[in-house]
Amino acid sequence: MSDAPFSVYDYEARAKLTLPHDFWEFIEAGAMDESTTRRNRSAFEAIKLRPRFLRDVENRKLSTTVLGTEISFPVMVSPAGGHKIAHPDGELATAKGAGMSNTLMMLSTSSHYPMEEVVEAGTGPKWFQLYHRGYEITEMLVHRAEEAGFKAIVLTVDTPVPSPKERDVHNHYKNPFPLGNFLATGEELTAMSGTDEAPDWRPALVPPLTWKELEWLQGLTSLPLVLKGIRTAEDAHVAVESGVNGILVSTHGGRQIDQTMGAIEMLPEIVEASKGQAEVYLDSGVRRGSDVLKALALGARAVSVGRPLYWGLAVNGAEGVHGMLEVLRRELDHDLAACGQTSVEELEPNLVSVPAGWGPGQMYP
Amino acid sequence: MSDAPFSVYDYEARAKLTLPHDFWEFIEAGAMDESTTRRNRSAFEAIKLRPRFLRDVENRKLSTTVLGTEISFPVMVSPAGGHKIAHPDGELATAKGAGMSNTLMMLSTSSHYPMEEVVEAGTGPKWFQLYHRGYEITEMLVHRAEEAGFKAIVLTVDTPVPSPKERDVHNHYKNPFPLGNFLATGEELTAMSGTDEAPDWRPALVPPLTWKELEWLQGLTSLPLVLKGIRTAEDAHVAVESGVNGILVSTHGGRQIDQTMGAIEMLPEIVEASKGQAEVYLDSGVRRGSDVLKALALGARAVSVGRPLYWGLAVNGAEGVHGMLEVLRRELDHDLAACGQTSVEELEPNLVSVPAGWGPGQMYP
Amino acid sequence: MSDAPFSVYDYEARAKLTLPHDFWEFIEAGAMDESTTRRNRSAFEAIKLRPRFLRDVENRKLSTTVLGTEISFPVMVSPAGGHKIAHPDGELATAKGAGMSNTLMMLSTSSHYPMEEVVEAGTGPKWFQLYHRGYEITEMLVHRAEEAGFKAIVLTVDTPVPSPKERDVHNHYKNPFPLGNFLATGEELTAMSGTDEAPDWRPALVPPLTWKELEWLQGLTSLPLVLKGIRTAEDAHVAVESGVNGILVSTHGGRQIDQTMGAIEMLPEIVEASKGQAEVYLDSGVRRGSDVLKALALGARAVSVGRPLYWGLAVNGAEGVHGMLEVLRRELDHDLAACGQTSVEELEPNLVSVPAGWGPGQMYP
Amino acid sequence: MSDAPFSVYDYEARAKLTLPHDFWEFIEAGAMDESTTRRNRSAFEAIKLRPRFLRDVENRKLSTTVLGTEISFPVMVSPAGGHKIAHPDGELATAKGAGMSNTLMMLSTSSHYPMEEVVEAGTGPKWFQLYHRGYEITEMLVHRAEEAGFKAIVLTVDTPVPSPKERDVHNHYKNPFPLGNFLATGEELTAMSGTDEAPDWRPALVPPLTWKELEWLQGLTSLPLVLKGIRTAEDAHVAVESGVNGILVSTHGGRQIDQTMGAIEMLPEIVEASKGQAEVYLDSGVRRGSDVLKALALGARAVSVGRPLYWGLAVNGAEGVHGMLEVLRRELDHDLAACGQTSVEELEPNLVSVPAGWGPGQMYP
Repeated sequence: MSDAPFSVYDYEARAKLTLPHDFWEFIEAGAMDESTTRRNRSAFEAIKLRPRFLRDVENRKLSTTVLGTEISFPVMVSPAGGHKIAHPDGELATAKGAGMSNTLMMLSTSSHYPMEEVVEAGTGPKWFQLYHRGYEITEMLVHRAEEAGFKAIVLTVDTPVPSPKERDVHNHYKNPFPLGNFLATGEELTAMSGTDEAPDWRPALVPPLTWKELEWLQGLTSLPLVLKGIRTAEDAHVAVESGVNGILVSTHGGRQIDQTMGAIEMLPEIVEASKGQAEVYLDSGVRRGSDVLKALALGARAVSVGRPLYWGLAVNGAEGVHGMLEVLRRELDHDLAACGQTSVEELEPNLVSVPAGWGPGQMYP
Repeated sequence: MSDAPFSVYDYEARAKLTLPHDFWEFIEAGAMDESTTRRNRSAFEAIKLRPRFLRDVENRKLSTTVLGTEISFPVMVSPAGGHKIAHPDGELATAKGAGMSNTLMMLSTSSHYPMEEVVEAGTGPKWFQLYHRGYEITEMLVHRAEEAGFKAIVLTVDTPVPSPKERDVHNHYKNPFPLGNFLATGEELTAMSGTDEAPDWRPALVPPLTWKELEWLQGLTSLPLVLKGIRTAEDAHVAVESGVNGILVSTHGGRQIDQTMGAIEMLPEIVEASKGQAEVYLDSGVRRGSDVLKALALGARAVSVGRPLYWGLAVNGAEGVHGMLEVLRRELDHDLAACGQTSVEELEPNLVSVPAGWGPGQMYP
Repeated sequence: MSDAPFSVYDYEARAKLTLPHDFWEFIEAGAMDESTTRRNRSAFEAIKLRPRFLRDVENRKLSTTVLGTEISFPVMVSPAGGHKIAHPDGELATAKGAGMSNTLMMLSTSSHYPMEEVVEAGTGPKWFQLYHRGYEITEMLVHRAEEAGFKAIVLTVDTPVPSPKERDVHNHYKNPFPLGNFLATGEELTAMSGTDEAPDWRPALVPPLTWKELEWLQGLTSLPLVLKGIRTAEDAHVAVESGVNGILVSTHGGRQIDQTMGAIEMLPEIVEASKGQAEVYLDSGVRRGSDVLKALALGARAVSVGRPLYWGLAVNGAEGVHGMLEVLRRELDHDLAACGQTSVEELEPNLVSVPAGWGPGQMYP
Repeated sequence: MSDAPFSVYDYEARAKLTLPHDFWEFIEAGAMDESTTRRNRSAFEAIKLRPRFLRDVENRKLSTTVLGTEISFPVMVSPAGGHKIAHPDGELATAKGAGMSNTLMMLSTSSHYPMEEVVEAGTGPKWFQLYHRGYEITEMLVHRAEEAGFKAIVLTVDTPVPSPKERDVHNHYKNPFPLGNFLATGEELTAMSGTDEAPDWRPALVPPLTWKELEWLQGLTSLPLVLKGIRTAEDAHVAVESGVNGILVSTHGGRQIDQTMGAIEMLPEIVEASKGQAEVYLDSGVRRGSDVLKALALGARAVSVGRPLYWGLAVNGAEGVHGMLEVLRRELDHDLAACGQTSVEELEPNLVSVPAGWGPGQMYP
């Protein structure tokens, strides 16, 4: 495999050579000054591994479950809107690639292909990411998702208002393809296209999503519910009290709300607050197997990757997504063994060291 | 609005293309090594937002009051000398732009237009910034300000001696226009021109301004009094004991006294020391709506912007000032919603996290 | 000696001009993002010396013992595979150079010359570095090492799986010479060549090395045993309980397992955990006499150098290795005197200051 | 004075244009990696001023005394060897410039002009810096210094062995002029020339300087004694117990012993240890009036400057030295007023804030 991309960064470098400039920038961009996008990485770098040796690590268990569904390793595909910009087969290819890696894909409300076709395209389990844009639309989406076989609803909570990405603004970027889940109901397209990846900023036109809507949503479906975007112990506490099944700690890749901490910095306080009553996942900044291991050591059950899926798609469609995931599997497997661990579900206490001053105690005053 | 400046930094970039080199440098420059100018920014960057979600944030209240005067959002215009270098209409345009945004403008003693004309030019409320340069001049200025309808006196305290800006020294920069408030009394011009923006350094030629003069000043007018430039809890404590109505925490944009902390770093100790007996404001380094939110979360009632007003003027006169302010309003409104807040007057405790080691405890020994 | 290399960095600069590109990169490379390789240096830089003066430092004792064997100064040669890439005489030259400096050389299992020839080539003491790759091979190697006169076995513990170096992967790098210790048994060559410096990653094909194998190994030979690569207090604790004679704290030059702390950062907790029951050494990042002094002040008995031996070889074979070692001796001798110390075995308490937050207390939570 | 150098950095920039490359490098260089030279600056930058306002600061007292001798402001000239490399008049010009600024000059044992001529050349007070190189030489030098009117002996303690500056080594730099104090006794020249600025490293050839020699030296002269180069509280403690009159905290500009903390970082622990029984001064890294103020606020009685004297000399001989000193006086005077202080001898407590973790508590373990 000598000349294949060897790391996720290799995929990034090749994708940059392939993608049209504005699509590339749309994928890379973060909100405003992109400080959170950068901090997602620097925060991971600040955490250090503490490997243990002289153990039998021949047999390593990478598989785990998320909400009871088995995945072959604890790296999933984040929900991200509109995969056609990276490859004509869009989400169909992503689903196929994730399936080849036997892991879970979260499909965005803003996908370019309809959810039903995406479910057909790939063999792996799927969760449906939901943007709540009114009771009727949500009801329609959730029922379709349930019917189509999605195993959970991932409700994005961090877009009460859309965040402009200034690179997109300067590029006059517009989503170039219609949204697959609304092809039959064209009148919804406009309302959706501007939600989390809007090229120009505008006030939200949709009814607010609050803890009350959450209750309503829980009554609407028997599917388990994951909240995506929670960034504080306080919200995590309310979430588990509300009976939420999972929390996906995320900065939305730094694409929503700049100037927050990196996702991995928020993880410890959220894990502590959720007290085992909900599974905790993480995305934003995962680029190496060691990032996966760090997140797991700090209490995440699994992580997911966003921008890398576009890079995989751009390099080689479904094969690229699969290849990118296999890079992470190989690295995680390596790091697990290198650190004397044999199961992603039973990691050593003190496997990582974090900088002095991190954690719940750092708030002011 | 696609090609209009989208951020305050866009205004800066355009202004740089427009302004003559020496004027540009005069505006950008800080005292000596400009370390405080830089630290104003890095200190803001070090503070991180902790957003809360799943709340109804449809109705957001950005308006607030400063000393009882309503402003449409908590961003005001800092007093800054001589606006004609950025636009021929100078302070008249600034006043008009601030008025269009329904916010307050602080007018500098060193303005290029007379205070009476500035008051006429704009519809928003105004405070008069005072450099004390002797009893007679101060009396003249304060009485004129009172008569002209200014609503408060903002006494600058951080210029007991003028600070050279070395870029100006190397450019042989001289204020190119006469000072508007002294057109009738030409003999004062020299004494004033060198105060806080003097191109060449010289000892102050004016009687000292002390807590005693403050008392005298309070007897001179019924207008409320704001102290601009306070940088320590110790001085804030004396100020509130002296019956001051407001404190504008400021590093003078790093243009007076290099090597202090950033303004936002000083804010917490000053808020604590003022114990609600005086309103606390902040300027120096505010470039984003998130900066406004951070300052408010740490106890400021409102902030103001200095250099950005010149950038707005240079880009498009009154419209540019207005546009720049509207950028900040849009960003603050966004960040407020994005963080689950609905009123600038009632922010969440723990809305921000600050680096370990910040705050009153960091002094030596 | 004016134009001779004056510092270890001078050796590095000259070696770079001399070595073929892919050999140079093989030597310089670290695992994955090479973050640990960099951190080995930044961690040393963060430690500061606290020199004491006005003492008689005329007579300085640099010599010390390691496991009872005298060395002329506490800098040894790390085990590193395959020296022929830097000089045709390979390990023979290294052994000669180390002998000229009267210090100890550790010989890698993966050497290009057979261990018996290397022992003959140099006058200094030698330890044999062992990669455990199965009971039979280990038995063969240990017995040969014992017979050949090696004074200890240095068992590498940090390669339960090989770590890819991505520079090597992109260079399609392959070890260009056969492994000397297996010339008679050619069938082992493949298994060995990929161990710690494998150009392409592959799962380990060898039986696991665990604390049980350690016990077996201790029964196999009367030579003292050093564990190389221990990175935590926890493992150090088990090691001394297991009767190990020495611990070589090492990050493998950052070539195995990226994202750990720098070696010098791990040293204090390991010294503390070993409680004088085992000697503690350090490699990874030593480039200056001051690094040696810092490591000794934090509890190491001696250090060793890896990459610099290749630089010395590339510059001038045995003479180059000797010259590089003499640079370190001269610098250590200088720093010892400059800091008021007269013996490497009796250093001042508080001779170094380390950054706040270092040490055992920094782990999370 | 528009085109005259306005800051010490302006002097540096001009000197660089004027001086021959090797002389420039000799002046700029630090020992080994020059990390201490850089840290001298970064440590000053990390300290922040906390200015107080609304005080009468019209009358400011910059003058102070050092060991009872009045100087017009608390900035002195550090002893530095061989001024002829910057100007033909060498130390004669320096003495004249220092005298014009009414401050004290410390003259190096390694001066290019004899001490008697230097005393004649300038009107200000002088201290004689002593390198102890044997009883006879020291006796000769001290007696001559006493006779010539020097007011104190500044004994350098931080050169038990000379430190190579690698820039000088690579430049084959040799001190190009004979040492003035040994013109009559030419045979001493060689022994002296290699002491603290040796272009090539060699072991010290002189008898050791210890606390015992200090006692002998105290018996040799009635002049007060200052120790230059003390870097720890421990040595400061012994020094004051030994009856030393002053301590000059110094890193030798980073030219002796790399890898120590910056001078200003060491100051607090030394001030604390000396408990008012000896005056404490500081050099190394002073480039701004604010540096002076910071050092004074942390307990120094005065500071001195080394490299800047060469820059002044290179720009304009005696006038340049004087001008450079006047820059510092103007800046110190400004900062004093700007911070609400009126006397260098009575500074505000809490005038500076230092980073968390500084100070005596930061040592390991």
